[in-house]
Amino acid sequence: MELQLPKGVRDFPPEEMILRNKLISTLQQVFERYGFNPLETPTFERLDVLSAKYAGGAEILKETFRFKDQGDRELALRYDLTVPFARFVGMNPQLKQPFKRYAIGRVYRDGPIKLGRYREFYQCDADVVGSASILADAECVRMALAGFKELGLPVKISVNNRKLLDELLEKGGVPKERAVEAMLVLDKLKKIGLADVKKELAEKAIPEASVDFIITISTDNKSNDEKFELIKEYVGETPGTRELAELLSYLADAADVVFDPSLARGLAYYTGTVFEGFVPESKVTSSVCGGGRYDTLIAGLLDNKQAYPAVGFSFGLEPIMDALKEKNPAERRTLAKAYVIPIKAPNDGFAVAEQFRQAGVPVDLDLNGRSISKNLDYANSYSIPFVVIVGKKELEAGKVKLKDMASGEESLVTVEEAIGKLK
Amino acid sequence: MELQLPKGVRDFPPEEMILRNKLISTLQQVFERYGFNPLETPTFERLDVLSAKYAGGAEILKETFRFKDQGDRELALRYDLTVPFARFVGMNPQLKQPFKRYAIGRVYRDGPIKLGRYREFYQCDADVVGSASILADAECVRMALAGFKELGLPVKISVNNRKLLDELLEKGGVPKERAVEAMLVLDKLKKIGLADVKKELAEKAIPEASVDFIITISTDNKSNDEKFELIKEYVGETPGTRELAELLSYLADAADVVFDPSLARGLAYYTGTVFEGFVPESKVTSSVCGGGRYDTLIAGLLDNKQAYPAVGFSFGLEPIMDALKEKNPAERRTLAKAYVIPIKAPNDGFAVAEQFRQAGVPVDLDLNGRSISKNLDYANSYSIPFVVIVGKKELEAGKVKLKDMASGEESLVTVEEAIGKLK
Repeated sequence: MELQLPKGVRDFPPEEMILRNKLISTLQQVFERYGFNPLETPTFERLDVLSAKYAGGAEILKETFRFKDQGDRELALRYDLTVPFARFVGMNPQLKQPFKRYAIGRVYRDGPIKLGRYREFYQCDADVVGSASILADAECVRMALAGFKELGLPVKISVNNRKLLDELLEKGGVPKERAVEAMLVLDKLKKIGLADVKKELAEKAIPEASVDFIITISTDNKSNDEKFELIKEYVGETPGTRELAELLSYLADAADVVFDPSLARGLAYYTGTVFEGFVPESKVTSSVCGGGRYDTLIAGLLDNKQAYPAVGFSFGLEPIMDALKEKNPAERRTLAKAYVIPIKAPNDGFAVAEQFRQAGVPVDLDLNGRSISKNLDYANSYSIPFVVIVGKKELEAGKVKLKDMASGEESLVTVEEAIGKLK
Repeated sequence: MELQLPKGVRDFPPEEMILRNKLISTLQQVFERYGFNPLETPTFERLDVLSAKYAGGAEILKETFRFKDQGDRELALRYDLTVPFARFVGMNPQLKQPFKRYAIGRVYRDGPIKLGRYREFYQCDADVVGSASILADAECVRMALAGFKELGLPVKISVNNRKLLDELLEKGGVPKERAVEAMLVLDKLKKIGLADVKKELAEKAIPEASVDFIITISTDNKSNDEKFELIKEYVGETPGTRELAELLSYLADAADVVFDPSLARGLAYYTGTVFEGFVPESKVTSSVCGGGRYDTLIAGLLDNKQAYPAVGFSFGLEPIMDALKEKNPAERRTLAKAYVIPIKAPNDGFAVAEQFRQAGVPVDLDLNGRSISKNLDYANSYSIPFVVIVGKKELEAGKVKLKDMASGEESLVTVEEAIGKLK
């Protein structure tokens, strides 16, 4: 047997998991502070649910891992967390709305393997179903801002509204049937720059004049209010301008929110607010969060006459991990803050380790009965910052030897003093 | 399309997830305090890895979900966390041993569906690879005890040694080829009782006399030391008695450890220490944790000449959940401690909610612009303990109205006072 991983999936060793768990628990706490509660759905769903009309679409279905159970029922690994969420909402009509849930879990796509593309990756979603109010959109943007504040990553969040973008394109004279194409080109403005956007428009025979206004406003360095006033002069009072004005009024105190009329967010299902976050100071150029309102998706999936207005967003765990590593490149290989080495008295070792552990200080312990020098090597190889040497004589005087592995400094202290130092 | 879950899998709604997440994060902290670090492997592995010699065995392979990727490679959902751990260890020869990892994740078995048996369930494992010393066995038992202490569940942990059990069976005259059968019947002593064990022995034509000694010692109400002395008189000094004596010497301060010479733990791969925990005060009769030493499993899996002595154990998340629910049957439907209702001033609502959230108090907020009475109904339906009513007039005086939903009591307080009360 060859020892190999399947193509496109990864092991996460401790040096990766320690940071990843910290990130996940931080975001979990942020979700919970904002009144979102955890919901977990199974790793696999019935194939008919995942391939329903309005679900991921043909492209995603091609990338869905399929299999059968013993009863020959067709199943598939979930490709996102949104369709299972819609299925859950549809199966639980007793849910009191608005229902706010978060979900952090792995999803699967049997796609081509490129750099940075995996067949198994995490999604980290929060959604509100049952509020058609822009208040819910603002809550999501505010939560995204709070998340990055908590992570110590300065973020800029671009906001726009799909209704408004439709109105601007119509006003510019883009034919309705070309609107999505034009939108997707404009959406790349930040990524590929003005010159390439113009080139792509020309290639698609979309007259630059028709989107000139949007491009000018998006690239000028004007305040949100100035941009918004110019837009109102251009299209007048419309559903799009009203929604956007309401959103901006709820975010007036948030300096990091930037109105960007070119923002579209690829997905077809957005119906109103869209937003996307970036960390400008970082080398990570892809978006670190994104979301928007999708008022028709769930009802469409459920083939149901009931309305399910919804808004939600995702933190991008992989780009956020990259930005965090860039900020703090030192890797931790263990969470242990000290390594306990008992000298020929294993029970004393256990007793001392227990004291640290009961005080909430993670410590490791010699489990091989090795010599001090071998144990020091071991502690070094895991970069454990302190070593606690437990000798019979010292312990009788109520003390242990605490060695700082970086400086080499040694001191004779009580266990309580050592705990105080490591806490 | 019919909205249905696949057979044998579950949704975990917030009322289930809130307790489940608390349990998982408690155990995670315990693992980390004991120097175990997180490792995550993919949801699926190559089929040849999962079906390798010494892996789960024929029974488990029949229950393995199989599928193929686009490149026609045979894959399978993991049926446990141990085989992927062994694969990781084999693929990473640079790992400094002992290597202590924990893993909490979902595993999959396409088996028959019975009450309490699922096709997707969690395993919660901690293992040490690279120590042949009984110190590592003791560390695992100590960590199990610490876990249940932290959860507030009084546990009894039965310990035994497979070498000793082999020796006792041999001494009793059980033929070597019948030893495993006899062991598996004895293992049920706690579950099915003495009478049924005798009946099963008779059915299998294993003379009761050959296991009489083991049964007597296991059912007599003697101390660990007394049992151990009787056993040494019976078999003398053996590898099994030496290992068990060493283990008990490291656990002398743990009153909840019970030596049980009949304990075998079904799995074939254990080679020394075995242990299993129960919560005697609970209606949950199945074991809540279990583990043991398996010195040959990893090397066998890897078809490798290097030795990989290992010991590990699992917390049984499902029975522990049941025991926790029995102890505290009240379900929480949300983590929100208060529900903020702004009166015609949404931005004041956001500002007040933000203060709670920044202080770490989870609060929810009216996102539909509803009337006070509708909002009170909503807060009630989620059993949110407090409501914070934000009125223009009160806010000008720096106050909000805090309503205790249980008592109906209302008070005019500053936001800081409200935070203090809810913290």
